[in-house]
Amino acid sequence: MKKSIGAKTFAIPSPVWVVGTYDSKGTPNVMTAAWGGICCSTPPCVYVSLREATYTYHSIMEKKAYTVNIPSIKHVKESDYIGIASGRDTDKFKDTNLTPRKSTLVDAPYVEEFPMFIECKLKDTINLGLHTVFFGEILDVKVNEEYLTDNRPDLSKIEPILFSAGDRNYYSPGEKIIKAFQQRTPP
Amino acid sequence: MKKSIGAKTFAIPSPVWVVGTYDSKGTPNVMTAAWGGICCSTPPCVYVSLREATYTYHSIMEKKAYTVNIPSIKHVKESDYIGIASGRDTDKFKDTNLTPRKSTLVDAPYVEEFPMFIECKLKDTINLGLHTVFFGEILDVKVNEEYLTDNRPDLSKIEPILFSAGDRNYYSPGEKIIKAFQQRTPP
Repeated sequence: MKKSIGAKTFAIPSPVWVVGTYDSKGTPNVMTAAWGGICCSTPPCVYVSLREATYTYHSIMEKKAYTVNIPSIKHVKESDYIGIASGRDTDKFKDTNLTPRKSTLVDAPYVEEFPMFIECKLKDTINLGLHTVFFGEILDVKVNEEYLTDNRPDLSKIEPILFSAGDRNYYSPGEKIIKAFQQRTPP
Repeated sequence: MKKSIGAKTFAIPSPVWVVGTYDSKGTPNVMTAAWGGICCSTPPCVYVSLREATYTYHSIMEKKAYTVNIPSIKHVKESDYIGIASGRDTDKFKDTNLTPRKSTLVDAPYVEEFPMFIECKLKDTINLGLHTVFFGEILDVKVNEEYLTDNRPDLSKIEPILFSAGDRNYYSPGEKIIKAFQQRTPP
């Protein structure tokens, strides 16, 4: 028997991604977003949803570009801080001792210390209410060699953070269960 | 030093969600989607991205409704199968011994055996190329009592499946790390 708990954003898991942008003065900034995901395979597209109140919102609107940086669990405290403080008030790269590097493909910075990042060119936006969806076309994915297996990012090496909007905790990823796309007949 | 691996949909983690719909004859169907996420807090909205080739695409277009069902790791094989077989060719509820129940709020079925589901009214769509994004307004979230803590869905009890598009494996969620939204000063 299922119990109604109301119209809430409790779908799980959500990712913990750090969005990199330059502001109008060219200062690098980062913010953490949990409302994000892949939304098209061809062309490859990813989105992040942001409130207009965020500093990053205006930077993406101006630069038409951002990076999606994927932190591993060892940077969970930095990622939480980056989701609370605003680039209007402080330099979050300096605060966290993280290093901004300029993307070679888009006008946005990435986080050197995180395992991987995605270079995104703004493709479209749609306002849904409090949040605006920023659709980015993925121009490239860049990953440190040690997190790759057969030249593909390996979740078990990267150990990305999970967020649960229900219980408001961060989680580590667990064990590999099975390979995907194998079950061609009913189990 | 980061290595370019090309424009790929490798952002991690992706969710493993099972989308419930009725077709034009009223037959319940399910399909597994990994391209999905929360995209607005107010009104609460979730999206799934689907190819036009899927049977579910046309059912959502007709009924303007769907459910997002969140399986736990014990149904990983069923979830994989539901992502491969098509409702055009087979009854995936019967194949997997899962039970369709009618949502009371939208014209779509949900999966009785899964821990939770979200009732969605289609709000908007946007075609990005191979995939079309279906934005659903969340009308309610329903959860079995045993997966709740303080009336909120608890990720550690639900144990949702994670998907990694890079290494193409399913993973279980791991341990709780820290509570979110605590790090108000730099760590």
